[in-house]
Amino acid sequence: MKVALAQIDTTVGDLRGNSEKILAALAEASRRGAGLAVFPEQTLGGYPALDLWEESGFARANEKALSALAQKTRGAAALVGFVSRSKVRVGKPVRNSAALLHEGRIVAVRHKTLLPTYDVFDEARYFEPASENRPIAWGGLKLGVTICEDAWAEDSSAGRRLYASDPVSAQAEAGADLLLNLSASPFLLGKAGARKRLLARLAKRARRPLFYCNAVGGNDEIVFDGGSLAYDAKGRLRARAAFASPDLLVVDAKTWEGASVAPEPSSIGQVGDILILGIKDFAAKCGLQTAFIGLSGGIDSAVVAALAVRALGPRRVVGVSMPSAFSSRGSVDDARSLAKNLGIELLSAPITGVYDALLQALGEKWGKGTPDLAEQNLQARARGVVLMGLANKSPRGFVLATGNKSELAVGYCTLYGDMCGALAPLADAPKRLVYELADWLNDGRELIPPDSIAKAPSAELKPGQKDRDDLPPYDQVDAALDAWMRARHEPPRVARAVGGRAVAEALLDRMDSSEFKRRQAPPSIKISSKAFGVGRRMPIAKAGWRARSGS
Amino acid sequence: MKVALAQIDTTVGDLRGNSEKILAALAEASRRGAGLAVFPEQTLGGYPALDLWEESGFARANEKALSALAQKTRGAAALVGFVSRSKVRVGKPVRNSAALLHEGRIVAVRHKTLLPTYDVFDEARYFEPASENRPIAWGGLKLGVTICEDAWAEDSSAGRRLYASDPVSAQAEAGADLLLNLSASPFLLGKAGARKRLLARLAKRARRPLFYCNAVGGNDEIVFDGGSLAYDAKGRLRARAAFASPDLLVVDAKTWEGASVAPEPSSIGQVGDILILGIKDFAAKCGLQTAFIGLSGGIDSAVVAALAVRALGPRRVVGVSMPSAFSSRGSVDDARSLAKNLGIELLSAPITGVYDALLQALGEKWGKGTPDLAEQNLQARARGVVLMGLANKSPRGFVLATGNKSELAVGYCTLYGDMCGALAPLADAPKRLVYELADWLNDGRELIPPDSIAKAPSAELKPGQKDRDDLPPYDQVDAALDAWMRARHEPPRVARAVGGRAVAEALLDRMDSSEFKRRQAPPSIKISSKAFGVGRRMPIAKAGWRARSGS
Repeated sequence: MKVALAQIDTTVGDLRGNSEKILAALAEASRRGAGLAVFPEQTLGGYPALDLWEESGFARANEKALSALAQKTRGAAALVGFVSRSKVRVGKPVRNSAALLHEGRIVAVRHKTLLPTYDVFDEARYFEPASENRPIAWGGLKLGVTICEDAWAEDSSAGRRLYASDPVSAQAEAGADLLLNLSASPFLLGKAGARKRLLARLAKRARRPLFYCNAVGGNDEIVFDGGSLAYDAKGRLRARAAFASPDLLVVDAKTWEGASVAPEPSSIGQVGDILILGIKDFAAKCGLQTAFIGLSGGIDSAVVAALAVRALGPRRVVGVSMPSAFSSRGSVDDARSLAKNLGIELLSAPITGVYDALLQALGEKWGKGTPDLAEQNLQARARGVVLMGLANKSPRGFVLATGNKSELAVGYCTLYGDMCGALAPLADAPKRLVYELADWLNDGRELIPPDSIAKAPSAELKPGQKDRDDLPPYDQVDAALDAWMRARHEPPRVARAVGGRAVAEALLDRMDSSEFKRRQAPPSIKISSKAFGVGRRMPIAKAGWRARSGS
Repeated sequence: MKVALAQIDTTVGDLRGNSEKILAALAEASRRGAGLAVFPEQTLGGYPALDLWEESGFARANEKALSALAQKTRGAAALVGFVSRSKVRVGKPVRNSAALLHEGRIVAVRHKTLLPTYDVFDEARYFEPASENRPIAWGGLKLGVTICEDAWAEDSSAGRRLYASDPVSAQAEAGADLLLNLSASPFLLGKAGARKRLLARLAKRARRPLFYCNAVGGNDEIVFDGGSLAYDAKGRLRARAAFASPDLLVVDAKTWEGASVAPEPSSIGQVGDILILGIKDFAAKCGLQTAFIGLSGGIDSAVVAALAVRALGPRRVVGVSMPSAFSSRGSVDDARSLAKNLGIELLSAPITGVYDALLQALGEKWGKGTPDLAEQNLQARARGVVLMGLANKSPRGFVLATGNKSELAVGYCTLYGDMCGALAPLADAPKRLVYELADWLNDGRELIPPDSIAKAPSAELKPGQKDRDDLPPYDQVDAALDAWMRARHEPPRVARAVGGRAVAEALLDRMDSSEFKRRQAPPSIKISSKAFGVGRRMPIAKAGWRARSGS
C-alpha cells in the first residue's frame, strides 16, 4: 500500500480552514495512488490550542468537524488528529486523539498515551491519557497508531527517562503491521538528529515500517519544521519531506517506490528558514500586513529586516531610521544602504525633538544629575512610541522587535523601548548566532552592509557608547547564557565556562534580575532547547538561592 | 498535644531567610507549649518556585537547608515543606515533600500525591507524585501528613472529579490519629467557603482532628490568604488563623484550649486586603521602593493609589498628573484632591509638548487624515514614557499600572502606554469591583474624591471622549467578560448574559482579538477563579472557532 505523509500547515482554532486543507491534501494523495494519508497531530484544531482545549465547546466543535470531514472522505483513508471528549468520569475532560476516516465513516479513534509536560508543552494540563491502545484493523492491515510524544518514551535528553511505558513498541507487540505517528514536534536546533535516531531504533526493533508525519508552520512562539519521515522494517530512512514548508510525500510501504529524501539545510540554514517561516505564519495567522522595523544601522535590526523581507516580501516591510544626537553618521548611512539593498521603503523620524520635549515634561529637577540609564531609556522609549505610531497608522501594521537573546538575558534592552513589537524574531538567537545569520542571509552578496557586521555593537544612547563598555564581550555573555539557561550549571561551572568568577557572578546577577523585563517581552520564535517565553517560567519576586562565592 | 499552625510568609528561593522565619516561629510555638508546628507547603523554598524546581541544584540546596534546619530544631517538632530528589529512576526528578524535624533529626519524609495541573498550577511539569504514603509514627502518635491538593480530591469545581484517589482519607484508613495538611492555596473570591466545606467533611468522615496550615503572602501574581484552619473529629471548625497576614495559632488537639476563630473580612474586604498584601509583598520581595502612579482623576488610578498607600505608606507613593489638551479641569483637580487626601506627593508633567514633538517626528503625512486610535495611543504612550522616566530616576522606583480587568478584556488600553508598570493591581478586578473597592477604601471618609467615583469614565484621549462612546456600558462588558472568561459559555449564552446578540458578538470579537496586548501586560494580582496572566494560556495567532450567528 502507498502511504501519504500529508505535512500541512494548520491554524489554531480554524476548524473550517484546516478541514479544507485536509480534504485538498487527501484528494491529491488519492490522485497519486495513496491508500492512506497520515496527517499531523491535532490536524483539525491546530497545535497548540492551549486553553481552547479546556473549552467544552471546542471539543464538541472538533467532534462535529470530524464527522463532517469523515462524510467527505473519498479515495484514500485519512488519519487525522483532533480533540475528543473523554468517556472516563474522572480526570481531565478531553483527550488528544487520532481518527481513521474512510469512505464517509469514522473507522476508529485512538488516544495519546504519553503527555509531554515540560518546556513549551502543557499536555497534562489538558488531556486524559489513553489507558490502552490496540492496533486498528483496517483493510486487512493492523495499523499501529501513536501520537507524537508516544514515540519519545526512550528519549533521555532530560537526563533521565520520563516514562515507564513505550507505546510504539506496544503497538508492534500487539501485532501492528505498520507504525504510524501523528506529530507536532517543534523545531529546535539539533533535534532533527535525535528524532531520526529515535525513530530508526523504534522501526528496527519492531521490524515494522514506520511513518512519521510532522506538522509544519509557525504558531506564536513555536515553529514546526516538517521533515516528515518514513523508515523501513530495518530502520533505514527511506523518505523525508521538505524542511520548513508544506509537503506531500506518497511512498509505497513495500517497494519504497516514490520514496525520496529531501535535503536538510545546514544548521544556520535551518535557523534562518525557521525564523522566516515563523515571521510569515505569525503575520498570516494574525492577519498582519506591514512590518515596521527600527533600523539602527546595527546588525540585529539589519538581520530582522532581511528575514522579514524573505518572509513578507519587500513591499510589506518598512524600515524606520530614528537618529538622535548620539547616532553616528555611519549608522544612518548603514541603515540607508540596508534599505536600498533590501528594496524596502525607509522612513526617517529623528527623535531629538521628542527627547527634548520629554526632558521638558520631566522638569528641571529630573535632568539635573549625571545622566544615567534613565536618559538612555528615554531615548529608546521615544523610538518605541514613534515606531508604534507608524505601525498603528498603517492598515494592519505591526512592529518587529530587533533584540537578541544575549541582550534579553542580561537585560541590556529597554522595556517599552526597543522591546516594543508584536514579535521578536531574534529573541532566542544569541549574538554569535546573529552574526552567522547575517552571513547566511548575505550568501556572498552584500545585503547587510559589511560595516553593520564589522563595527563594534552600540546602543548609541550616550556619547561614544559601545556595548563592550557596559557588558563583558559577547563571547563571555553567550557562554554565561548557555551555562545558566540551557545547561543550568551552578556558579562554579558558569565561572569556568565564562573564564572568570567575578564576571560570571556579575552576569548571573544581571540574568537573574532581568526576569521582570522578559515577562513583558513580545513573543519570540523558539530555535533552541530553552527559549525565553512560554517554555520558561521563572518567578519575578524571588531571592537568589545559589551559593555564590560571596555567601 | 498542642499543635501550632505556623502561617508564615516566605520568599521564593530564599532558603536562608525562610529557614530563619521557620526557626523563629518554631521557638515561639515551643514557648507557647506546642509539641508540633505545622508549616505551609514548600516552606523552605517558597511557592511557586516554578522552573527553579527544575534546577538540580535547587533540590540539592533544599535538602542541604533542610538538614541544617533539622540540626537547629529544639522543643516542638516542625513539619515543613521542601523539594526532594526522587529516588525513582523514571519520571520527574523531584518531589513536592514534607519532612518532620525533631530534636536535631529528620524523623520522616512524605511526598505529595495529587499534583494540581490547571489554572496557575503546573505541578505535573515538575514533580513525581507519591506512589504511597503511610502515616508517620512519632511520639506515640500516627501523623497523617498530606500536602495541599491531596485534600482536594473531592473538589468538583472543575465540573468533574479530577482524581481517582483521596489521600487524606487514605491516611485515616491507615490509622492516622491526626490529619495534617501543609498548604499553599492562593486566594480567589469564594474559595474560603469551598475550602471549609471540603476540610470539615474530611475531618468528619475520618473522625480525626484536622490541622490545615496555609501559606500567606504575595508571590508575583498569586497571593496566599492564610486563614489556616483546625477541625475537631466531628468536623467542627475550632480555630482559624488571621486572614492575609502572618499568624501563629497554638491549639490543643484534645481540649481545644487556646482555639480561636479569627474573623473573616467581607468579600470586598478580602479583595482589598489581598490587593494590599499583593502590592506590599511584590515590592518587598523585589526590593522596590517608591511606586509612581499616573493619576488621571478617574476611579481606577485613584483606587490603585489608595491601595498602594495602604501597602507602602504615603511616603513611598508618588502621584503623577500628566494632563494633555483633552484633559478636563475637573480631572486635574480630582487628582490633586486625591493626592491631598492620601498625603502623597503629586508631580505634574503635562504631555502637550511631548505629543506635539511626536507629531512632528512622525511627519506631516502621518497626521493628515482624521485622527484615529493611533493619535490616542500616542498620548497614552507619551504618558507611559514620562511615568517610566520618573520611576527610573528614583532609587528602586517602579510604576503601578492602573488598568482594570474589563479594559484588559476588550483591549481598551494601550500597550506600552497605560499598560506600563511592574505590577497591575486591578487587572483581575472588573470595573464593577473597582467601584466597590473605592467605597471600601473610603469607608465613610472622603479619600477618593466623590467626583472620581460619580463621573462617567473617560480615557480623555480625544475631545469630550467617554468610555460609553467607545464601549457598551460596563454592566454589559462585565457580563460578557464573566460569561466568556470564567464560565466559558458559547456565544448564545453570552448573548443572553449580555442582553443582546450583536453587542455580545462585538464584545467576543474584541475579547478574543486582544490576546496580543495581554501577552505583554504586567503581572496582575489574582483575585478571581480565572485571571489573565499565568493561569490563562491563549494562543495569539488563531482563528475564531465558535459558531457565530454570522457563520
